[in-house]
Amino acid sequence: MLSKPVSTRPHWRPSEAHDSAASYCLSWRLAVEANDIYAWRTVPTQCLKHVENYMTGGQYERDLNFIMEHIIDYIDTIEVSDDGLDAWILDVDDTCISNLIYYRRKRFGCDPYDPDGFKRWALRGGCPAIPAVLRLFNKLVGRGFKVFLVTGRDEATLGQATLDNLQNQGFIGYQSLILRSMAYKGQSAVKYKSEIRSQLEEGEGYRIWGNVGDQWSDLQGNCTGNRAFKLPNPMYFVP
Amino acid sequence: MLSKPVSTRPHWRPSEAHDSAASYCLSWRLAVEANDIYAWRTVPTQCLKHVENYMTGGQYERDLNFIMEHIIDYIDTIEVSDDGLDAWILDVDDTCISNLIYYRRKRFGCDPYDPDGFKRWALRGGCPAIPAVLRLFNKLVGRGFKVFLVTGRDEATLGQATLDNLQNQGFIGYQSLILRSMAYKGQSAVKYKSEIRSQLEEGEGYRIWGNVGDQWSDLQGNCTGNRAFKLPNPMYFVP
Repeated sequence: MLSKPVSTRPHWRPSEAHDSAASYCLSWRLAVEANDIYAWRTVPTQCLKHVENYMTGGQYERDLNFIMEHIIDYIDTIEVSDDGLDAWILDVDDTCISNLIYYRRKRFGCDPYDPDGFKRWALRGGCPAIPAVLRLFNKLVGRGFKVFLVTGRDEATLGQATLDNLQNQGFIGYQSLILRSMAYKGQSAVKYKSEIRSQLEEGEGYRIWGNVGDQWSDLQGNCTGNRAFKLPNPMYFVP
Repeated sequence: MLSKPVSTRPHWRPSEAHDSAASYCLSWRLAVEANDIYAWRTVPTQCLKHVENYMTGGQYERDLNFIMEHIIDYIDTIEVSDDGLDAWILDVDDTCISNLIYYRRKRFGCDPYDPDGFKRWALRGGCPAIPAVLRLFNKLVGRGFKVFLVTGRDEATLGQATLDNLQNQGFIGYQSLILRSMAYKGQSAVKYKSEIRSQLEEGEGYRIWGNVGDQWSDLQGNCTGNRAFKLPNPMYFVP
């Protein structure tokens, strides 16, 4: 007869291990969304499931819908002038249109950034609209705002595909799509996007009422607009 | 024999109702921490339990510890000069010292702001240190940073109690505690704190390497420092 083993059970319990991983990933995601960690390169591998669940389990959409309601409440307080200078800025990637299908194959950001892979994906022009942001976009256009779509995508290589993609997803009626031209090549998004906004505000006299992006680099720098709104994105960081 | 009831079970399931409240409060808290909702007055009543669990169940401390590790990694990259001009800004309430005991009686922020009640609490000088921030503070002082504690608390009424409270909790060795003097009465925290930082940077030549606060109004405006770190606080909003 086998003797009963004594004290071979580890102190470590699976449920604790699970809780501790979940807690860590909650902390990590909070720090990302509050801009406490800078220039992170990949999602920590232990947070793959956490980020996958967040992005595909419904909470990401609920968070977007929640933020969008608040943006729309704010828009309803603005009196749009008839001088045509009331402006709004929207980022493109993972703001207007979604790269979730692509990032699913990149383990939701656990794999490092792959510029060639991303370019091939973007050239297909198949990013679906983010429904909550398309609703916001239509509201803005309907209220008479001049909507500027400002993206770090390279103008020369991705300009046409991006135009087509926005059109095939229903983003129709914006004032201008501004892509990264040769002059801004290699600049950080904060610097490039600040210069674009500064041209609009100081050069052309627009009043930027709002600015929406999934990256803090969309929202920081100069001429950031009267209100800035950060959309969630735990999959990648753009400096 | 009882016949089997058909379709009397409601479509609504308790677990779904719970999930929906939890999801709402997750969205609410994310929007608060990412600065997407502005000038909110109270925590939504349906999020009382959520905020209580967050603040007292361990995740708040874990989030603070996580952010603090990243701040300390950043500090380790800074070469402190011997000119005595490397500065760091810390907010006081719910950054250095905690008002959680007080807010517990205010239903974790579900009750509206009570200026007299808060003043009575602050006058007692009994706010405990937030351990993770005290660790950061000691690290900063040890590395030779000039640490400025900048608070919106009224200098005339709360100056002595705040000095005593910081001392009794171990915040010793800072350069200066700056409270709101008559000149700044009625100003928003963004404006008041920006002016203080601007005096330090432009008036006195300090280099502000970091700025830590639980409110976005601690971190926005002018002279915001090389890096700003938002600590979680889902209990109240200071404009």
